[in-house]
Amino acid sequence: MSDQTELRKKAAQTRQATALAHPNIAFIKYWGNQDHALRLPINPSLSMNLGALFTQTTVIFDDSLSHDSLTINQQDYTLDDPAYQRVRHHVDIVREWTNISTHARIESSSNFPVGSGIASSAAAFAALSVASSAAAGLTLTEAQLSQLARRGSGSASRSVPTGYCEWTLGNDVDSVAVSIAPPNFWDLQDVVVVVSQEHKAVGSTGGHRLADTSSLQSARVAGADDRLTRCREALLARDLVSMGAIIEEDAVIMHGVMMSSQPPLYYWNAGTMRIIQATQQWRAEGLPVYFTIDAGPNVHLICESAHVQAVVSAAKQLPEVQDVLVSGPGGPARLV
Amino acid sequence: MSDQTELRKKAAQTRQATALAHPNIAFIKYWGNQDHALRLPINPSLSMNLGALFTQTTVIFDDSLSHDSLTINQQDYTLDDPAYQRVRHHVDIVREWTNISTHARIESSSNFPVGSGIASSAAAFAALSVASSAAAGLTLTEAQLSQLARRGSGSASRSVPTGYCEWTLGNDVDSVAVSIAPPNFWDLQDVVVVVSQEHKAVGSTGGHRLADTSSLQSARVAGADDRLTRCREALLARDLVSMGAIIEEDAVIMHGVMMSSQPPLYYWNAGTMRIIQATQQWRAEGLPVYFTIDAGPNVHLICESAHVQAVVSAAKQLPEVQDVLVSGPGGPARLV
Repeated sequence: MSDQTELRKKAAQTRQATALAHPNIAFIKYWGNQDHALRLPINPSLSMNLGALFTQTTVIFDDSLSHDSLTINQQDYTLDDPAYQRVRHHVDIVREWTNISTHARIESSSNFPVGSGIASSAAAFAALSVASSAAAGLTLTEAQLSQLARRGSGSASRSVPTGYCEWTLGNDVDSVAVSIAPPNFWDLQDVVVVVSQEHKAVGSTGGHRLADTSSLQSARVAGADDRLTRCREALLARDLVSMGAIIEEDAVIMHGVMMSSQPPLYYWNAGTMRIIQATQQWRAEGLPVYFTIDAGPNVHLICESAHVQAVVSAAKQLPEVQDVLVSGPGGPARLV
Repeated sequence: MSDQTELRKKAAQTRQATALAHPNIAFIKYWGNQDHALRLPINPSLSMNLGALFTQTTVIFDDSLSHDSLTINQQDYTLDDPAYQRVRHHVDIVREWTNISTHARIESSSNFPVGSGIASSAAAFAALSVASSAAAGLTLTEAQLSQLARRGSGSASRSVPTGYCEWTLGNDVDSVAVSIAPPNFWDLQDVVVVVSQEHKAVGSTGGHRLADTSSLQSARVAGADDRLTRCREALLARDLVSMGAIIEEDAVIMHGVMMSSQPPLYYWNAGTMRIIQATQQWRAEGLPVYFTIDAGPNVHLICESAHVQAVVSAAKQLPEVQDVLVSGPGGPARLV
């Protein structure tokens, strides 16, 4: 990508950069850490970047600033806001790597609703990692960018490479995501069925810390490798029937862990369950579609592009459905 | 119970008997068998008989019959019906124990809807066991009646003793239920919130055979003893706060196993999930109520009698709710 090289050069000169990253939908879920501070996951995971959805983030290092400033979707964040502190902490890693102390202006905006089971933090920290490292004059490999993104939000590691990505276990340096297939390998579609736009009560970071309190978590982790292997094989064979059964099983197992943790986390609502039931019904009627659900109530219906219209139409008839977003596979996090 | 002795004598003389048994709601669930034919469970369980709900069954041994006849809720069953065969098989055990070959007329009726997560088979096989053994002239101990009932439907073992019952592991003779507290020990109420009256697609007997196909089942079984011990202690201390957390966890763990079995079993529907969410909300507002859910979509809200009216009123406001039944603790299966 020679335009990326050009953009990186320009960023280093101007000390500012804008990057774009897609959220991703996990087919094999990440839930729980071996190391919370480094966000080293307890199990490997597998996902697809969502090309139609993106977060775009600009980072400007500016010697005249007395502190970092953060604007997300036109809203300014104060220094005591947890979101501000999380972002500042992330830019601190970049400052540490480059040995600079300059403050930065950070502006970010997304074209999709945040906090409702679409991995907004994944796109946000992938874009922030690419933009802030470039603005700081760093030339990072994809693996290093994935590592950096992971430090901000675990699943952000998977939004760095292109298309379909696998995030492996490892230490701080090698627990990173790699692409296992480009976006054009298979035109899978994610029909995101929005049943709630409320910001979830317990975010993923807090949830990961609860994972170990469920008596089901060790069984979930013990089976994750096998599910991931079978999911990867089905994906690379473009076998949606096999893959669909695995992603549903994996999602339900994660939510079983969540609902049995102490305190329990109930991300599902009535709409979630109605769509789960409807999905079985649609399949029985011949529509090949499968669900997965992240840490929120919204349901991701996975199908091939030939069936998107039928899935969207069917979903829109369900009473709790507020909105439907559709996305195919997306590219890597990148400078723009 | 001298009237039971009288009734048993009369039954032996007339070769006919009528028995009544209550369904029960499990606080610690039974899901999966060590031995399917003998219905020896994979884990111990704990329940409360539901005094307001009952099944009443009459068994008449009659030498003039050429085959058994079965009527349930005024409906006659044909010889090839699976329900008929299950009942005939059960009476065969009694015939085996008494070495008789006479056929029987069996009539049964219940005052609650069957097949929707209220354990209709538990009450049915407990009543059938008491009636058929008495009509056959047998004098069985409570443990033997519990054993016999268990052979027909696992959870029926818990509908034989009185009040709050624990069903232990063991072999055919000693895997039986015993009462751990009489009905008047604690006036807990089960507010059964009916969100579906459809007969479930996969009955419990089929479901138990699927339990081992879930990767979560061994973790569920491994934790069951501990949950049961804590639940029994909370129950005997009349500590609903502690007990409530355990029964919700245990129910969710069972449904996690069900939803991750192969093929998956989704007993919950949108109404189920709405009530789960509402229960958290009600508690946050100060109403002490906890849910449990059997192998069906309906939700059992457990509270003390002082809060029944508030719980019933709140539940009736939810859109999917079709009916609400209320029951306190019930007595043993018995001749009437």
